[in-house]
Amino acid sequence: MIEITSVQNNLIKDVVKLHQKKYRENFIIVEGKKALLGAKEADLEIKYVFSTDKSNLLGFDDDKSYLVNDKVMEKISTTESAPVILGIVKKPEYDIQNFKNFKKIILLDSIKDAGNLGTIIRTAAAFDIEGMILFGDCTDEFSPKTIRSAAGNIFKLPIVHASVGELKELKKTHKMLTTVVNSKNSIDALEAKNLSIIMFGSEAQGLCEELLSLSDISYTIPMKEGVESLNLAISAGIILYEMYKSAN
Amino acid sequence: MIEITSVQNNLIKDVVKLHQKKYRENFIIVEGKKALLGAKEADLEIKYVFSTDKSNLLGFDDDKSYLVNDKVMEKISTTESAPVILGIVKKPEYDIQNFKNFKKIILLDSIKDAGNLGTIIRTAAAFDIEGMILFGDCTDEFSPKTIRSAAGNIFKLPIVHASVGELKELKKTHKMLTTVVNSKNSIDALEAKNLSIIMFGSEAQGLCEELLSLSDISYTIPMKEGVESLNLAISAGIILYEMYKSAN
Repeated sequence: MIEITSVQNNLIKDVVKLHQKKYRENFIIVEGKKALLGAKEADLEIKYVFSTDKSNLLGFDDDKSYLVNDKVMEKISTTESAPVILGIVKKPEYDIQNFKNFKKIILLDSIKDAGNLGTIIRTAAAFDIEGMILFGDCTDEFSPKTIRSAAGNIFKLPIVHASVGELKELKKTHKMLTTVVNSKNSIDALEAKNLSIIMFGSEAQGLCEELLSLSDISYTIPMKEGVESLNLAISAGIILYEMYKSAN
Repeated sequence: MIEITSVQNNLIKDVVKLHQKKYRENFIIVEGKKALLGAKEADLEIKYVFSTDKSNLLGFDDDKSYLVNDKVMEKISTTESAPVILGIVKKPEYDIQNFKNFKKIILLDSIKDAGNLGTIIRTAAAFDIEGMILFGDCTDEFSPKTIRSAAGNIFKLPIVHASVGELKELKKTHKMLTTVVNSKNSIDALEAKNLSIIMFGSEAQGLCEELLSLSDISYTIPMKEGVESLNLAISAGIILYEMYKSAN
């Protein structure tokens, strides 16, 4: 275990760089016990661990463990109230080839809100979704805010970026579902016993034309007239729950 | 219509004060077209309207309308990307006496996250909840962030703060439901044909003892084993959808 007391320390400066996306090509910041244990369970390489409390560093390699003071922790943390433990973790790499055998997959098109993305990852883990596909220009799935919103579930399901070509490949094995505003199919009829991919567009734009044309069937969440729409994570929550019920 | 070009203007300084909760006793900041139209529809007094574009001020009283430049709008707005229109609106006052006749009511205990609160208000409006009760120490329901997350629905349902005594009064007419982690009742059996109040505790603390003792029946959202819990707004979304289905 090494002790660091200065925010001017070079390693500390390197860690702070990871607050910016451009530096997160290979390593990411993982804040909090739950998320860091998730990284361990997922067998991801943990390069460094920092904590303000020795006891939190037990169970991590001694030469990768750093005891820091509150000032240093505040410096490396991205949150207002700094966590007790923070790790630098090798960014996971997932292969879309494995998605072929997944029963249920969620696809998000051009999602911009980091909090919503994290919440959807957490919800997907709860309802047994096996993988997530990001399409188009999305917020970073490994940003500190997304990891925080996923509440310890960030490494529970593989997340990949896919091209239209790759989605067409998956369409050979999977039924592609979507939710729209005006379908005649209520989600009560949602049937997810087959291999399936449920696709969600952004709140502002909906699903892009390319993905809409891949859809096999669309559903609508019934709601009160005159209300425009739900928050994306709420829609996803309701649909994923319905899929979970239909499959179990 | 009056023009303001200086951020040093006294009215502008007064508006900026409303960013802080302590100044929002009588008036609140409402940003964006949708939310401001909501205030109009709800017949709330609109004290001032500010816009960077004349055409947005049509339909508002001329002597309450202010044309401002981008700099002033950025100053009075609470968001990173300033809205085209912003209004100062009389804070609505609701009477819990009216709740007696409401079919479906949602109660939130000690909710701290402004984004989650706004999202739940939006979801409640979509699923025909007639009123919201806040209990304990909650985040401000009229904070700019809550209003923003409610996406134009902030004035669609009355929101009151209630004491245990007032809740006991409502319990005479309403069935009180709650969600817990380990109930044997799945929400598929959720029955909301009667007048009912659905209660949610905070993610961290759950529902407090006082409210738990008022509960008539509790439900659990089935989910994958080993996943701890859902985001509060997601749980609420799923339950409110189930209630909406059961009642319609």
